[in-house]
Amino acid sequence: MPPFGLLHRRAWASLFGQLLRPSGLVCIGEVHFHSQVSEAVLISQLKPHQEKSNFVIKTPKGTRDLSPQQMVVREKILDMVIDCFKRHGAKRLDTPAFELKEMLTEKYGEDSGLIYDLKDQGGELLSLRYDLTVPFARYLAMNKVKRMKRYQVGKVWRRESPTIVQGRYREFCQCDFDIAGQFDPMIPDAECLKIMCEVLSGLQLGDFLIKIPWKDVRHEMVAKKGLAPEVADRIGDYVQRHGGVSLVEEMFQDSRLSQNKQALEGLGDLRLLFEYLTLFGIAEKISFDLSLARGLDYYTGVIYEAVLLQTPAQAEECLNVGSVAAGGRYDGLVGVFDPKGHTVPCVGLSIGVERIFAILEERMKTAGLKIRTTETQVFVATPQKNFLHERLKLISELWDAGIKAELLYKNNPKLLTQLHYCEHMGIPLVVIIGEQELKEGVIKLRSVASREEVAIKRENLVAEIQKKLSES
Amino acid sequence: MPPFGLLHRRAWASLFGQLLRPSGLVCIGEVHFHSQVSEAVLISQLKPHQEKSNFVIKTPKGTRDLSPQQMVVREKILDMVIDCFKRHGAKRLDTPAFELKEMLTEKYGEDSGLIYDLKDQGGELLSLRYDLTVPFARYLAMNKVKRMKRYQVGKVWRRESPTIVQGRYREFCQCDFDIAGQFDPMIPDAECLKIMCEVLSGLQLGDFLIKIPWKDVRHEMVAKKGLAPEVADRIGDYVQRHGGVSLVEEMFQDSRLSQNKQALEGLGDLRLLFEYLTLFGIAEKISFDLSLARGLDYYTGVIYEAVLLQTPAQAEECLNVGSVAAGGRYDGLVGVFDPKGHTVPCVGLSIGVERIFAILEERMKTAGLKIRTTETQVFVATPQKNFLHERLKLISELWDAGIKAELLYKNNPKLLTQLHYCEHMGIPLVVIIGEQELKEGVIKLRSVASREEVAIKRENLVAEIQKKLSES
Repeated sequence: MPPFGLLHRRAWASLFGQLLRPSGLVCIGEVHFHSQVSEAVLISQLKPHQEKSNFVIKTPKGTRDLSPQQMVVREKILDMVIDCFKRHGAKRLDTPAFELKEMLTEKYGEDSGLIYDLKDQGGELLSLRYDLTVPFARYLAMNKVKRMKRYQVGKVWRRESPTIVQGRYREFCQCDFDIAGQFDPMIPDAECLKIMCEVLSGLQLGDFLIKIPWKDVRHEMVAKKGLAPEVADRIGDYVQRHGGVSLVEEMFQDSRLSQNKQALEGLGDLRLLFEYLTLFGIAEKISFDLSLARGLDYYTGVIYEAVLLQTPAQAEECLNVGSVAAGGRYDGLVGVFDPKGHTVPCVGLSIGVERIFAILEERMKTAGLKIRTTETQVFVATPQKNFLHERLKLISELWDAGIKAELLYKNNPKLLTQLHYCEHMGIPLVVIIGEQELKEGVIKLRSVASREEVAIKRENLVAEIQKKLSES
Repeated sequence: MPPFGLLHRRAWASLFGQLLRPSGLVCIGEVHFHSQVSEAVLISQLKPHQEKSNFVIKTPKGTRDLSPQQMVVREKILDMVIDCFKRHGAKRLDTPAFELKEMLTEKYGEDSGLIYDLKDQGGELLSLRYDLTVPFARYLAMNKVKRMKRYQVGKVWRRESPTIVQGRYREFCQCDFDIAGQFDPMIPDAECLKIMCEVLSGLQLGDFLIKIPWKDVRHEMVAKKGLAPEVADRIGDYVQRHGGVSLVEEMFQDSRLSQNKQALEGLGDLRLLFEYLTLFGIAEKISFDLSLARGLDYYTGVIYEAVLLQTPAQAEECLNVGSVAAGGRYDGLVGVFDPKGHTVPCVGLSIGVERIFAILEERMKTAGLKIRTTETQVFVATPQKNFLHERLKLISELWDAGIKAELLYKNNPKLLTQLHYCEHMGIPLVVIIGEQELKEGVIKLRSVASREEVAIKRENLVAEIQKKLSES
C-alpha cells in the first residue's frame, strides 16, 4: 500500500489522549444560551440524566459516518477512479439527490420497493435516487443530448437489508462512466471493459475477472439473431468451459456452428468485442459465466460484472465482497423519458466504491497501516510564555504563502506538548520562535524526523520552508 | 479569471452540431428489450405520441442538474475552499444525507418547517440534513470526541421558496470548517475569520466585508457580563459608526466606558479578538452591523457573516447575492446530543458555494469566457480507412501510460471530422497513423494550435508525448 504514509500504531493510539489538554478558561459566549437549544442544554445540565436515558444517538440504519481516517482512503479511491474516467475523455455531470417519483417508477422492476420516498409535504412527490443511470438518462432526454461521455460520482440510496460486513449499505457512493450515442458496434462497449480493468488494476485489489452472463448472450442470439435454441445451447457448451477469446475462436472452428449462418452472425459481435479487447490487452480478463443473472431492468444487451479472485488466504478471512463493478448496455432507457420516444443507445459501468473500500480498509487493518488525516506541513511552536502574538504573526505569514500550518490554541503551551503533537500527527517541520531568536532576527527550523535544527533568517523563512518541502 | 482556459464562443456553439455524425450501424442489443422498460419503450414507439403529452420531464422544484461546464466551475471553487481548509490543518469528515428525525428537531427554531422528511416506509423516521453543523455535533457526541478540527463538503436540503436568480436552491452545497474543543479565548474564533477572508480573497470575488451583528454582542454584554443596558447602548453608539479595530480602541478611550468595570470586561474579549485579527492582517475586513439578525437557533455567541461589496456597475447588474459565508459559536449544541449533557465548545464557518457559483457563472457569461470540460491531452486519428485496429492498439498504449486520450467510435471517420473534434474540444495534440507511417515505423505528432507535424519513431511515442505535455 505505498500511497499511504505510515504512522506507528502506538503513536496513533495515544494521540488523542495526549495532545492539547483542556484549559480552564472560558470562551466568550460559552455560558450564553438562548431559545430551545439553550433551554434543552440547561435542563440537561440541571436535571438528573435519567430523562435522557431512552435517547439513543446513532446514524440511521444502514448508514454510517466516515471518519477522517476513512475519508483519506475514500478520497484515494475516488481520485484513482476519476483519474481513469478523465483519461478516457469523460465530462463530469451532477444531478439532484432526489427526482420526481414518476421518473424512477418502472425502471427497477422488483427492486422498486427499495426506493426511498420523501414525505408528501405539499408539492411534488419525490424519491431519493436509486442509482446514477436513470438520472443520466433523464438528463439526456430532458436536454435532448444525443451524444455524451460523462462520469458522475455521488451517493445513492436503497432500502436494502444492510449486511455491513460485506460493504452493503443503504447509503452508498457510486462512480459511473457512460457513453451515450449511436456509434459503430462494440467500440464503446470495449472501452467500458477497458476502463473497468484499468480501475481494478490501479486500485491493486488483486486478481480479478470480468464475467459476462451467458444467459444474456443466449437471449441475444435467439431473440435477435433468430438462432435455433439448440444451436445456442451448443455454443453454451463451449461457454460452460469458462473461457474468453480462445473460446470464441474455437467456436468458429466447430463445423456445426460455422456452417450455420445464424450462428456465425450471432458469434460475429462476440468476436468483434473480443478482437477489440485483445487490442486493449484485456481479453484474458473477460469470461462468460453461466451462473450470473441479469441485472437491473433497464439493461437491454450484454451486461458484465467484475469479481475479485480470492487467494485461499483471503477466502479464509471471509472477505467475500462479490461484485466490485458492473455495467452494460441500456439502449431503451432514454427513450422512456423522451416525449417522442427517441432513444439514445447507452453503455456504461459503475464502480462499487463501498465494497472496494471495505477490502482496502480490512487490508490496512490487517497490515496495521495507519494514515495521516491532515496535510499540515509546518507547526509553529515556542518554548516561551507570552509568545502567542509572535506565533500568530508567523503562522499568518505561512498561510498567506500557501503553506499548510498549525499551532496550538493556547496562550502558553509547553514545548514538549507541541513537539509531541507534531510527531503524532506526522507533521514534518517545526518552526520555533523564542526570545533569543526574536532578538537575533532568526527562526529555528526543525525536522521532526531527524530532530535536526537550523537557524534561518526571519526574512528567508517562507523561501527556506518551500525549499525544504520541495526536496522531500 | 486566469485559471480557466479560453475557447471561442463560436467554436463552442457549433461543437455539438458538428462532431461525430450518427452512423447507420446497429449495435448488439439495441433492439433487444425486455420487461417493463422494454414494453414502455415499445409502446412509446408504436403508439402516437399524444399519450406522453402530459409527461413533463424536469428536476424537482428548487433543484437542478449541473452541466459539465458548470461542474468545472463548481470543482474549481471546491478545490480552492478545500485547499484553504487543509492549509489550516483540518481533517475531512462525511455524514449520511439523512439523520434520525429526532436529531434535527428543535435545532433550527422557526426554520424547522423547512426540513425534508422521508416517507414512513416502516422503520425509523428520517429527515434530510438541513446543514452540516448539527450532524457534526451529533458525530462529536456519539463518538465522545472532545477536540477536532474538521471540514465537510456536501449537499444539504431546505424546503425554501427558491429564488434561483440569487443562487437560492432547495438542494445546495455547503463547505464547512469547524473547530471543536475547549481552548484559550478567541484564538479559534480569529482563525475562522481568517479562513473566511482567505477563501473570499482566493476566489477573487471582489471586495468584501465580514459583519458581526451588534445585537449579539450587546446581548452578550448585558446577559453575560451584567452590563447596564444604557452602557451597552453607549457602546452601540460607537458601533453604529460601522468600524472595526479602531472603534474598539476609541471605546477604551471613552471615560464613561473605561471607568465602568463591566464595560471594560465586556470590551475585553472584543479587544482580544481584534488584536488577533490585526496580527492576521484582516482587522480592517471585520465590522459591526446593527441591522444583522441572529442566525440559526444553535448559535450561542458572536456570529458573523461575509458580504460582498458591490461596485456601482455590479449593483446595476442586480447581482445581489447577499451573504456568501457565515459562521459563529455554538457552544451548547454538542451537549444536546450527549446523554450526560457534556458540552464541547465549537466555532466554525460555512461557505455558501451556490451564491459564489452564481457570481462566477454570471461573470463568465458577461466576459464570454468558455471552459474545457474534458482534460484530454491526445487524440488518436487516421486519414485512412480500415485503421481501427491500429488506432485501438495505439490508444491503449497511451491509456496504459497514463495519458488522457480519445478517438472517434467509428470504423472509418474522416480526417477533417477528427481534427475538427480536437479544435472544438481544445485537445492540444493529435497522433496520426496511416499506411505510410505504419510502413516506416513512425507516427505523426501534430500540435492542434500551430498545426505543426513531426514524425517520431513509434517506440518513442509515449516518451515524446510526455515531453511535449510537460513543456506546455
